[in-house]
Amino acid sequence: MEISKIKDKLFNGEIKPYKIEQLLFEQVNKDITKWSEVCETATRLRLEYIKHKTNSKLEKVSSAYPITELEGMTLTGIENKIGGVVIPLGYSGPVKINGEHTKGEFYIPLATNEAALVGGNNRGVSAINQAGGMTTVITDNRMTRAPVVELENIIEAKQLVLDLHNDSKLYQQLEKSVEDVSPFVSLISIKPFQMGRRVWLRISYDTSNAMGMNAVTKHSAIIIHKLIELKPKIKLIALSGNMCTDKKASHVNVLLGKGKSVEGEIIFPRAVIEKVWKTTPENMIKVNNIKNWQGSALSGTVTGFNANIANTIAAFFAATGQDLAHVTTSSTGYDLLELTETGDLRFNISLPNIEVGSVGGGMFFGTAKECLEMIGCTGNDDGKTNAKKVAEICAVAVAAQEINLIGTLANQFELAESHVKLARGEKMGEDK
Amino acid sequence: MEISKIKDKLFNGEIKPYKIEQLLFEQVNKDITKWSEVCETATRLRLEYIKHKTNSKLEKVSSAYPITELEGMTLTGIENKIGGVVIPLGYSGPVKINGEHTKGEFYIPLATNEAALVGGNNRGVSAINQAGGMTTVITDNRMTRAPVVELENIIEAKQLVLDLHNDSKLYQQLEKSVEDVSPFVSLISIKPFQMGRRVWLRISYDTSNAMGMNAVTKHSAIIIHKLIELKPKIKLIALSGNMCTDKKASHVNVLLGKGKSVEGEIIFPRAVIEKVWKTTPENMIKVNNIKNWQGSALSGTVTGFNANIANTIAAFFAATGQDLAHVTTSSTGYDLLELTETGDLRFNISLPNIEVGSVGGGMFFGTAKECLEMIGCTGNDDGKTNAKKVAEICAVAVAAQEINLIGTLANQFELAESHVKLARGEKMGEDK
Amino acid sequence: MEISKIKDKLFNGEIKPYKIEQLLFEQVNKDITKWSEVCETATRLRLEYIKHKTNSKLEKVSSAYPITELEGMTLTGIENKIGGVVIPLGYSGPVKINGEHTKGEFYIPLATNEAALVGGNNRGVSAINQAGGMTTVITDNRMTRAPVVELENIIEAKQLVLDLHNDSKLYQQLEKSVEDVSPFVSLISIKPFQMGRRVWLRISYDTSNAMGMNAVTKHSAIIIHKLIELKPKIKLIALSGNMCTDKKASHVNVLLGKGKSVEGEIIFPRAVIEKVWKTTPENMIKVNNIKNWQGSALSGTVTGFNANIANTIAAFFAATGQDLAHVTTSSTGYDLLELTETGDLRFNISLPNIEVGSVGGGMFFGTAKECLEMIGCTGNDDGKTNAKKVAEICAVAVAAQEINLIGTLANQFELAESHVKLARGEKMGEDK
Amino acid sequence: MEISKIKDKLFNGEIKPYKIEQLLFEQVNKDITKWSEVCETATRLRLEYIKHKTNSKLEKVSSAYPITELEGMTLTGIENKIGGVVIPLGYSGPVKINGEHTKGEFYIPLATNEAALVGGNNRGVSAINQAGGMTTVITDNRMTRAPVVELENIIEAKQLVLDLHNDSKLYQQLEKSVEDVSPFVSLISIKPFQMGRRVWLRISYDTSNAMGMNAVTKHSAIIIHKLIELKPKIKLIALSGNMCTDKKASHVNVLLGKGKSVEGEIIFPRAVIEKVWKTTPENMIKVNNIKNWQGSALSGTVTGFNANIANTIAAFFAATGQDLAHVTTSSTGYDLLELTETGDLRFNISLPNIEVGSVGGGMFFGTAKECLEMIGCTGNDDGKTNAKKVAEICAVAVAAQEINLIGTLANQFELAESHVKLARGEKMGEDK
Repeated sequence: MEISKIKDKLFNGEIKPYKIEQLLFEQVNKDITKWSEVCETATRLRLEYIKHKTNSKLEKVSSAYPITELEGMTLTGIENKIGGVVIPLGYSGPVKINGEHTKGEFYIPLATNEAALVGGNNRGVSAINQAGGMTTVITDNRMTRAPVVELENIIEAKQLVLDLHNDSKLYQQLEKSVEDVSPFVSLISIKPFQMGRRVWLRISYDTSNAMGMNAVTKHSAIIIHKLIELKPKIKLIALSGNMCTDKKASHVNVLLGKGKSVEGEIIFPRAVIEKVWKTTPENMIKVNNIKNWQGSALSGTVTGFNANIANTIAAFFAATGQDLAHVTTSSTGYDLLELTETGDLRFNISLPNIEVGSVGGGMFFGTAKECLEMIGCTGNDDGKTNAKKVAEICAVAVAAQEINLIGTLANQFELAESHVKLARGEKMGEDK
Repeated sequence: MEISKIKDKLFNGEIKPYKIEQLLFEQVNKDITKWSEVCETATRLRLEYIKHKTNSKLEKVSSAYPITELEGMTLTGIENKIGGVVIPLGYSGPVKINGEHTKGEFYIPLATNEAALVGGNNRGVSAINQAGGMTTVITDNRMTRAPVVELENIIEAKQLVLDLHNDSKLYQQLEKSVEDVSPFVSLISIKPFQMGRRVWLRISYDTSNAMGMNAVTKHSAIIIHKLIELKPKIKLIALSGNMCTDKKASHVNVLLGKGKSVEGEIIFPRAVIEKVWKTTPENMIKVNNIKNWQGSALSGTVTGFNANIANTIAAFFAATGQDLAHVTTSSTGYDLLELTETGDLRFNISLPNIEVGSVGGGMFFGTAKECLEMIGCTGNDDGKTNAKKVAEICAVAVAAQEINLIGTLANQFELAESHVKLARGEKMGEDK
Repeated sequence: MEISKIKDKLFNGEIKPYKIEQLLFEQVNKDITKWSEVCETATRLRLEYIKHKTNSKLEKVSSAYPITELEGMTLTGIENKIGGVVIPLGYSGPVKINGEHTKGEFYIPLATNEAALVGGNNRGVSAINQAGGMTTVITDNRMTRAPVVELENIIEAKQLVLDLHNDSKLYQQLEKSVEDVSPFVSLISIKPFQMGRRVWLRISYDTSNAMGMNAVTKHSAIIIHKLIELKPKIKLIALSGNMCTDKKASHVNVLLGKGKSVEGEIIFPRAVIEKVWKTTPENMIKVNNIKNWQGSALSGTVTGFNANIANTIAAFFAATGQDLAHVTTSSTGYDLLELTETGDLRFNISLPNIEVGSVGGGMFFGTAKECLEMIGCTGNDDGKTNAKKVAEICAVAVAAQEINLIGTLANQFELAESHVKLARGEKMGEDK
Repeated sequence: MEISKIKDKLFNGEIKPYKIEQLLFEQVNKDITKWSEVCETATRLRLEYIKHKTNSKLEKVSSAYPITELEGMTLTGIENKIGGVVIPLGYSGPVKINGEHTKGEFYIPLATNEAALVGGNNRGVSAINQAGGMTTVITDNRMTRAPVVELENIIEAKQLVLDLHNDSKLYQQLEKSVEDVSPFVSLISIKPFQMGRRVWLRISYDTSNAMGMNAVTKHSAIIIHKLIELKPKIKLIALSGNMCTDKKASHVNVLLGKGKSVEGEIIFPRAVIEKVWKTTPENMIKVNNIKNWQGSALSGTVTGFNANIANTIAAFFAATGQDLAHVTTSSTGYDLLELTETGDLRFNISLPNIEVGSVGGGMFFGTAKECLEMIGCTGNDDGKTNAKKVAEICAVAVAAQEINLIGTLANQFELAESHVKLARGEKMGEDK
């Protein structure tokens, strides 16, 4: 069938848009070397179809997307593709990092439509550098999935919990079931929570340099299959029971970890505070206490004792190809400001749920790959630390934004202004 | 100064990267007609610089971004720009919507790197259409900013609260102070909350078709200025006191609104459930109760009684140029499933905080504008309903994803599989 | 029938224990003057029966209770009574209060089994007095009940919300329905919250000197009856829909009030801190920030940013006959400590939900009445401020305990000791 | 010194009220056999003093309290005692329990001022018995204290966490430090949580039949002393860092346990539902979903997905001498209702934090001891299960109240009525 004929059939409804790839692939006798070409043609045909249907131009959507590279990889790809969207990319830095896994100076890629964000970040970076750089450590590292299963009654449910705690042979059998599935994924623990006759099994894995949600879903399915094989009375209710917790702000992630838990620390000399924000450590501590702690408590949050972590997370995640839905959970964080004995400002930030990777999803190609290259974290490395480096750099980016907003607020009314005029030079503030 | 010389100075550190625009603009004697050209040159120079500094190629970053159009508008733009990042764009639909402000059939743009997301959404859409489409209403509409101010003591703080409640002249003066600032923004209310000697003023505005955070920041600064002018004992602590609450998951937004509050409703005939997901309404209700309500409660959330709203919010927001940091708050939502008297499935979804606009930020140009065109919501309209339409379409996209995941989980183990193989045809599922 | 015969029938199961009052009352031909005697006999018979059944002595239970007085009042009384339980009563004070409704010096009754509690409270009182006493204001006063109703669909539910906001005639009809029910109860507001096709109506009342839960339940039933009469499509789901929120820790009560909202304030001179706790304001501020704010946030609370408010609430409520189940909600509170410009300690406490009365329930008689007399707040007064006085005195009692525990912790390790030895003299600490 | 002279000095301020015991004890040359007498005299003198000072009668307060018995035990006693307060005592039952530690029929003591509470409980008991009784299991048992310590920086804080996880010798040394302190208390685990440079050590103990807060405070002080001895850089901030979490509603207790975690289960035949509440399982499930789950979620709770657990907890705790401040945390709970395949009602209740004992505090004497006798749980037993029995009986009492309120609400409007009239007979409802 010629392309024009396929197009006709598509337009008159005889062919479903999402089936074009299949159709074209069959026409080339499933020659895998032509898959890339197939995808490109399918995308273009669909784009024509949608332009026609919605009577819109979609020019930039069409030109933006580097189709062929992606589709050269048959493993990934989204459905019903018609092109790509673009978000402006800026950067801050270089910022000095003295991290557990990250040492040196780094430029931070930030993709956003929001004016003042990059400028604010850069001012924070400038202050961090003047303070000698930022220290980071990773205190936990896991990716989680929590299937929920049902038993006959509370007694059997309790027994399952006991078995998971005490029956090391059972645990080994479950561990073995996923042993050879992937060299990059290993089981850390299975933590059961009983409510009524149901048990949520919060299963934790080390997923190496991948963020890992897909892997842990797959592995957890295997583990549950095995568990049911061994204990046939168990009934699966859902492979994800929301105790993971994936993509919903929740406290279990704070307490028990999901993603990389990063702690960051800087001592800002008083003179730096005075120079960069024309305010004092005392004023910044006051703003932090009242806004980020009292205001947040009054607002009824369980995860958001901070100024605007989500801004940085979103911009850094968009740049480096992370899962943007994780902005919900990765933005969890706590800003801790206090006076040192010498009258300087101790700044700590606690980020328990940075869910990032350096491989997987959209990171194998395109702009995401390039932004990861820019921070020296592309792909897999021998030490399996690239994802940890991404997390530490992300934490520093967050810290820069937080400290700058707190400083800016302490020097009142600037926020309003910074949002409404294009004050690039002033905001970048490196050398004021 | 020639470009090559500027480049040299940039590379050897004599010129700060963020100052190139200024420099170039001065060289053309601040001729505004050359601003676009200036920005393009600055971006390219900076990109060269970063490529050099980070020893990375950044090819796609460079080619992706349609620089000139954006920079033709001097109002917006991010700092330190070096290009753009690209996210693949797919779509689901058309979906039938019977909304308060949105009637007809719509294609939903979704930008994501996550395989299966678009496919899953489309299956949900298929089920919604088979059920006759989705009904939506908007029950609240406001954008908020909550400055926090300090008084001498609790008695004066109480007096301020009383004045804000009872002194209609005071309120009118505050209202008047922002009356002529923008034809698109109007004050709705000022709600005070006292804790100790501080008062958080949660100020609500109608921001027309803009999402509005920048506008409400600016307006709140003016109102606080006026308030302090009238009552000089009041001291501003921070223009945002986290009771807004902006970009942190918090309960005050659920109770008192932020963004568009959207309610959605569909009755799925039992036959549709059986056909699309090969399961029953009863099983889906069970999954919803145990996963989305019991599991979420056990996890310690206050905003996330749902399956995966954030996935859809992130993909729809990325496509239509919304603020991605709002994924934290806009993903708040409640899935309500119950059996009707005729044995069919009533599905309700309650989304109290959809923070979207059709104008502002990145929506004036590029791919965001095109995706808004695709759903017929570009820019300002006479009736000022475009942003509400965006919210309703977004809610339907969310509903499609939620119902499909619940149905898929009810038909066990499919989730794991759907994440690990490229099962396009099966997943799109329109005509099975 | 003779008493001995009734007893026989009771013991052999022919008479149900809870029916003895009825039976005896009929035997005296329902002569109301004999009701008290009837109750006493019934209680004694039942006590005999339970002693027999459980083979226990129950001596003190029997002797403790002043039966006749209570039962002289036919309005109140619990079912299946067999006597009373006793809790030791101590006191702290006198404490100086400069309250909105409470001025002078007060002895605070505290009933508890916990050693060190009264002693600790007294030490806090001593410090408060040395600081010149405590200032209090009441910033909100309401009792709430939130019925939940169901509509046909989301459109009708939205319409009900709109009607409740905009239809002043509807509101007046609802208000009128409860107008003459009690001279002590008046409607303040009806605040609707929609989720799906249901609407929670959070109805607020001024209940004068009564705590008021029973009254607001009764009045809300009437209002809902009237609402359904006017709008027959509305279906009641539950007279209490948990948005009240009664007796569950919840954030809606913090934001929108339930009971008396009390703010308290004291400036402790540095010298007082040094004398009473042998520590500094800085150390106490540090303990408060880390324990009460950071620790509580990390613990996942939404209502408990304090040290041990519940201890004082429980002891004060037990003494004055308040509803002990309200310890859950009345213990909500926030400790705010900061340095003044002169280096002294500013202490604020915010208690949004003190649910107390001076009339009703167990306050008409017995020890509760006596403890209310002790603080000068018995029964109804012309100005209807007795319940507010109770709330302010309660807040001061809470403040004394909080500040003492914070001071004690700042002077490390004392807590452990204070709990394990009977250090009366040291702990009372007035004159050290 | 004669009593009359002491009284004079007391009244004119020369003797502090809290010092009377000391003074009198010295006068009898610290003869311990006279301690009881000393306490009685001191209490009477103080009572006279307070009556004089507050110009109130305090008759019942005086007569209520069985002073001598308590004071015969020098270990316990509250400060500044002046007598006792009385709360009416009723009972429900006997209820059939098939518990892990509790088997048979039990009468449940309930002390309350609230009419309808006992009646409602008894109706729930009646339904439970008709369903064959209630099954309970205890799924966790611990008492916790969480000191918070400070390190130099985040790296050292991380090291402490690692040491606590990995250094078994360290753990053994800490364990050993409390080994011989009490035969009734044993260390279960030390779980560290880092935020910034601080670490909260949530230490769990088995406290045998004691509720245990005092014991765990004392033991944790010893452990921290030892830890600082071994690692002198560690600085204690507070012996309780609110991650315990003691007496504040918090989510950490749900996830990680505090007190006894009890699961309860009953299958109510449809006929029982229809007979007792004249409603259907479906209606009760609907009320539970909308009120206890949707309403509670909307209200912003993290611990209260139930109807009125606090009512029963408060009444049972008051009767049996438990710590009434624990009503805040012990009232945490989840009601789970669902239809069985045979159309009957499965009722589960999950109570993660029942903080009770059978020894300690006020349980050694008086009415509390008698009420514990009434349920067969006085003092220590060989198997150390008495406290667990108390917890299971408490859980059944809670279940009876919950199911009855849900049933009553499902049979609409009854709640309002039950609260306002004395409908004993109807409410007890055993044999309708």
